[in-house]
Amino acid sequence: MNDIKHKIFFQPHAREIEVADGENLIRAAMEAGVHINASCGGEGVCGKCRVILEKGEIEGGTEKLSSEDREKGYHLACLSKVRSDLVVRIPVESNVDASVLNLAASPRHTARIKEFRLESIKEQGLLIPPVEKRYLELPPPTAQDNLADVTRLINFLKIKHDEHRLVVDLNVMRQIPELLREGDFKVTATIIRPVREDGKNQIILVEPGDTTSRNFAVAMDIGTTTVYGEVLDLNSGEVLSSYGDFNGQISYGEDVISRIIFSEKNGGLDILQKKVIETVNNVLGKIIKKAGIRKDEVSTITLAGNSTMTQLLLGINPRYIRRAPYVPASILYPPFNASDIGIDLGRHTIALLYPGVSSYVGGDIVAGVMGSGLYKSDKLTLFMDIGTNAEIVIGNKDWMACTACSAGPAFEGGGITFGMRASKGAIEDFSIDPVTFEPMIMTKGNVRAKGICGSGLITIVASLFENNVINNRGKFHQELDTERIRQKDGIWEYVLVWKDNTQIDRDITISEPDIDNLIRAKGAMYSGALTLLEEVGLTINDIEQIILAGGFGSYVDLESAMTIGLLPELDPKKVIYLGNGSLLGAKMSSYTNQFRRDVGEVVKMMTNFELAETPSYMDHYVSALFLPHTELNYFPKLKERMDARKVW
Amino acid sequence: MNDIKHKIFFQPHAREIEVADGENLIRAAMEAGVHINASCGGEGVCGKCRVILEKGEIEGGTEKLSSEDREKGYHLACLSKVRSDLVVRIPVESNVDASVLNLAASPRHTARIKEFRLESIKEQGLLIPPVEKRYLELPPPTAQDNLADVTRLINFLKIKHDEHRLVVDLNVMRQIPELLREGDFKVTATIIRPVREDGKNQIILVEPGDTTSRNFAVAMDIGTTTVYGEVLDLNSGEVLSSYGDFNGQISYGEDVISRIIFSEKNGGLDILQKKVIETVNNVLGKIIKKAGIRKDEVSTITLAGNSTMTQLLLGINPRYIRRAPYVPASILYPPFNASDIGIDLGRHTIALLYPGVSSYVGGDIVAGVMGSGLYKSDKLTLFMDIGTNAEIVIGNKDWMACTACSAGPAFEGGGITFGMRASKGAIEDFSIDPVTFEPMIMTKGNVRAKGICGSGLITIVASLFENNVINNRGKFHQELDTERIRQKDGIWEYVLVWKDNTQIDRDITISEPDIDNLIRAKGAMYSGALTLLEEVGLTINDIEQIILAGGFGSYVDLESAMTIGLLPELDPKKVIYLGNGSLLGAKMSSYTNQFRRDVGEVVKMMTNFELAETPSYMDHYVSALFLPHTELNYFPKLKERMDARKVW
Repeated sequence: MNDIKHKIFFQPHAREIEVADGENLIRAAMEAGVHINASCGGEGVCGKCRVILEKGEIEGGTEKLSSEDREKGYHLACLSKVRSDLVVRIPVESNVDASVLNLAASPRHTARIKEFRLESIKEQGLLIPPVEKRYLELPPPTAQDNLADVTRLINFLKIKHDEHRLVVDLNVMRQIPELLREGDFKVTATIIRPVREDGKNQIILVEPGDTTSRNFAVAMDIGTTTVYGEVLDLNSGEVLSSYGDFNGQISYGEDVISRIIFSEKNGGLDILQKKVIETVNNVLGKIIKKAGIRKDEVSTITLAGNSTMTQLLLGINPRYIRRAPYVPASILYPPFNASDIGIDLGRHTIALLYPGVSSYVGGDIVAGVMGSGLYKSDKLTLFMDIGTNAEIVIGNKDWMACTACSAGPAFEGGGITFGMRASKGAIEDFSIDPVTFEPMIMTKGNVRAKGICGSGLITIVASLFENNVINNRGKFHQELDTERIRQKDGIWEYVLVWKDNTQIDRDITISEPDIDNLIRAKGAMYSGALTLLEEVGLTINDIEQIILAGGFGSYVDLESAMTIGLLPELDPKKVIYLGNGSLLGAKMSSYTNQFRRDVGEVVKMMTNFELAETPSYMDHYVSALFLPHTELNYFPKLKERMDARKVW
Repeated sequence: MNDIKHKIFFQPHAREIEVADGENLIRAAMEAGVHINASCGGEGVCGKCRVILEKGEIEGGTEKLSSEDREKGYHLACLSKVRSDLVVRIPVESNVDASVLNLAASPRHTARIKEFRLESIKEQGLLIPPVEKRYLELPPPTAQDNLADVTRLINFLKIKHDEHRLVVDLNVMRQIPELLREGDFKVTATIIRPVREDGKNQIILVEPGDTTSRNFAVAMDIGTTTVYGEVLDLNSGEVLSSYGDFNGQISYGEDVISRIIFSEKNGGLDILQKKVIETVNNVLGKIIKKAGIRKDEVSTITLAGNSTMTQLLLGINPRYIRRAPYVPASILYPPFNASDIGIDLGRHTIALLYPGVSSYVGGDIVAGVMGSGLYKSDKLTLFMDIGTNAEIVIGNKDWMACTACSAGPAFEGGGITFGMRASKGAIEDFSIDPVTFEPMIMTKGNVRAKGICGSGLITIVASLFENNVINNRGKFHQELDTERIRQKDGIWEYVLVWKDNTQIDRDITISEPDIDNLIRAKGAMYSGALTLLEEVGLTINDIEQIILAGGFGSYVDLESAMTIGLLPELDPKKVIYLGNGSLLGAKMSSYTNQFRRDVGEVVKMMTNFELAETPSYMDHYVSALFLPHTELNYFPKLKERMDARKVW
């Protein structure tokens, strides 16, 4: 994506917004708080989202229109890409009622996405990875100088490269005599650094000739659902390739608890370990091929995952993770040869595992805390990784408190009538016309809708609530004049997409039980954060910054999340989308050994709280089972907007 | 053996000697320099060694005599065990000629045998082995205290036992959750210490309950010929069992060079590694059973061997050991899991390998230097391990110089017409009547002779030389009046045992080429020592102490070795028989981690000299090809005796 920005001026709303070059026009409208009817998800088949281009250049949007419409400047917003500054008019049939213009709309904000800045690492002289290659031209042994081969190698690494405290294991030792002679005593030694500076530097590989230009690392996030990997060039710092795949364990359970239960069955642990290793190897195969390197050129693989994923990866029985008092086997893991657990890399490749804090605040969160820079931040930060098992960290460079809560599967589409994963056809963006209650819908991949993903669910509920379609208990205002609100089998629901515009030949709806599930999920998270703050003597108003980690966190619309009371109300500019923080942390540890060293200190700093052991948690939880919360003072801006709309 | 001593007074020689209770009378006579004819090796069949018991008590010795002889007090000396102070008369037929009495005989001396003094180690508070067990009663986790299992273990090892810098590897980590709970959080942790004090303490085993009373180690010497092992109780310090076996590699070559040549053949290295591991496991099976322990109760196995044995054990190609400039792969070896190379002990058992100095001064010699205490001695010491490949160390606590020389196989009976290993039927003791030239012979196991072992060869040649049967070039005085000296197929020889008294139905002889082989072997060793002394600016007269290591060194008769010029002439009281120094060093390292730490420093202190690179070695060697040496001033006492006998 380039950095070019364009301004769009929407008429008759007279609302302006700046978007990136190539942005979809319907998303731009959503961002601006301008409603356009749209129900086909962006496929361009419902034809409802017609807008008139008054000025500027749009790419696409006219393919499905008559020549007559084209001449009038019509475009289908859902198929239009913004290519210049624009003036766009929403026609009456798309906008229904101008009265909406006078309502205080909530413009949508995309949070800053945390970017990995390689240059900054380089400038700080921190591109000193845990594993380095050293080229040496050794004097061949003579009668007067017949040191042992290993001694010669170590002595000259000391003399020529100031390397100290070197050790060699048996596997490498076995190969050294032949390798030295094969390379005519010109060799490259690969050295892995210790975590503690006073530890040993281990020679893990000796190669004939100068191979210093070929030093690669893999960073990998072992998620419960997905496994992402990247190949990193440790000389240039470049990411050479990346790939993600579903964790092969998925067929044995969707979440960590069901995985643990399966692992306790006879042979279950072995199966789950084998499955995740298969996935790891599959991802490795892809990224190594794509990067154009050999697998034995990978010096380290740094892996981050939650505590259950980590234990399953290592073949450590996770049974006590799910049993009170929730004890993980370990929080620190020693470096080991990746091939020892079946990872298909060089015999010498060292696996480095992110340490965790507790059973439910694992290495993925620590990696996120590291990758986001939270551990170096002055600002009091709320770090959240939203999911079925959601983790919360509060703190700054001086201290950190963390906890985890079980939000249930609603954020991942679970327990929702038309819930689905965030894949093609999932409704991910939604707005509602406050007068007609007609929806504007965009799906992932701009195809006809199949269902609702987690981020879509949040946006839908936020929009329904803010437009007074549901009350603060998540119940529909049954009296509203729209056929989209209906009772079916005794359950009230809102029709998001009529079946003709779906891929599933059924009306796609959101029901009161669906909304209730979401309220309970967001309530668990919000009350977790409140409880944690209370434990450390702070309040929600002290939060200076929010970091949203995880795949889900990258999709969630901030305004919506604040509207439903999932996130505390904060200037969206103070929210950072971290993306895959686990992968980011793994990547940064791969580049910078100092970073890897810091992790140990950070883990010690992170004080774990068990919500189940914190009596106030249940009170906070019950108070959070409202939209946005019983305590509206936590959400002053929303209150203001709601007051303006006279929702109360 | 008990400590009771008896005095024997030999008549008519009027010579007294003190011997241990139970000593064989013929050996006592040899020790006293009293000649008794004896040719059957001690089997009691030749009947020549009849002596008259005048006073005291003898066990045995009368079985094969007539009742008439018994009444006269006759005993066969070779079958007699000394049980009290004695007066023994050698009858004329055994002694032949009293004129011998006036010759200055060379009484035989048994050197002090270096004893392992466990009490001394204990008194010094040094019984702190590299691996210790710690029992812990952990508080089980609770909701308020749900530390990771490994963290709990490590924290409490710190609190209760002041253990620091603890690490756990993956294999142990995998087991910890179940083991803690199996033991109701009462567990024993086995911890291996680092070599450097600032290194990591590794938890290698966690067991339910208190197993601190069961902590065992194995010390093992991996010799080219034999493998010896001992089971040590690390609590009491006791040696529970020991056993030795031939190294299974023997069928692939007698010495290290032929082993290396075999290892270079296709698959040869694997075969040799497998064979020595089989031997190790066989010895382990025996000693573990004998000690009444389980193999998984062995915490460490400390192994010492020469550089070739060490590399073969580890599966490291030793090809460059035998090629100039003689470069070993390594001299230091990291600790590793014994099972990694197929050693049949616990999965957690750590193998510790003695470091070496060079290709031909290996871990066995370093272990000997450690075990003998040479590295702590004030005295300038000559340390020799005599064998086909012989090693020499000169030095004291401040410095050490070492070298190796190839003496050829004569010391092990190789290249000698009737040479054999030191096994049953080998002539190991010999003296000759200076008038009649009749021999007195004792064999290993007191059976009829089969051949001559290395120590026997030295005694025979020394005796022949000192009694002027051969000259200082090792040539027979052909004019002597005895049928035992004869020429056969053009080669002069002396008949040691007539065929009727052998097991092989042939006369057992020693020939001039046999003697020449021995002279070259002893010449190589002596000149090696001289060269090494010269390199460090010292002379043979500066030597204050001799330590003889190795199986051979324990059998050699000191006077004989000095007479032929194998050892420098020194008061026998200043000679220490070390026995199996390699095993002793391995044992002491098993008991005392400080000892293991010192080894690294000692190895650095030991400066290696390559004789082939030392021009003066060849000159010294040529000068040493005489009995005892061209420079008789090196052997003043021998010169005095020879002068008295007018040999020159």
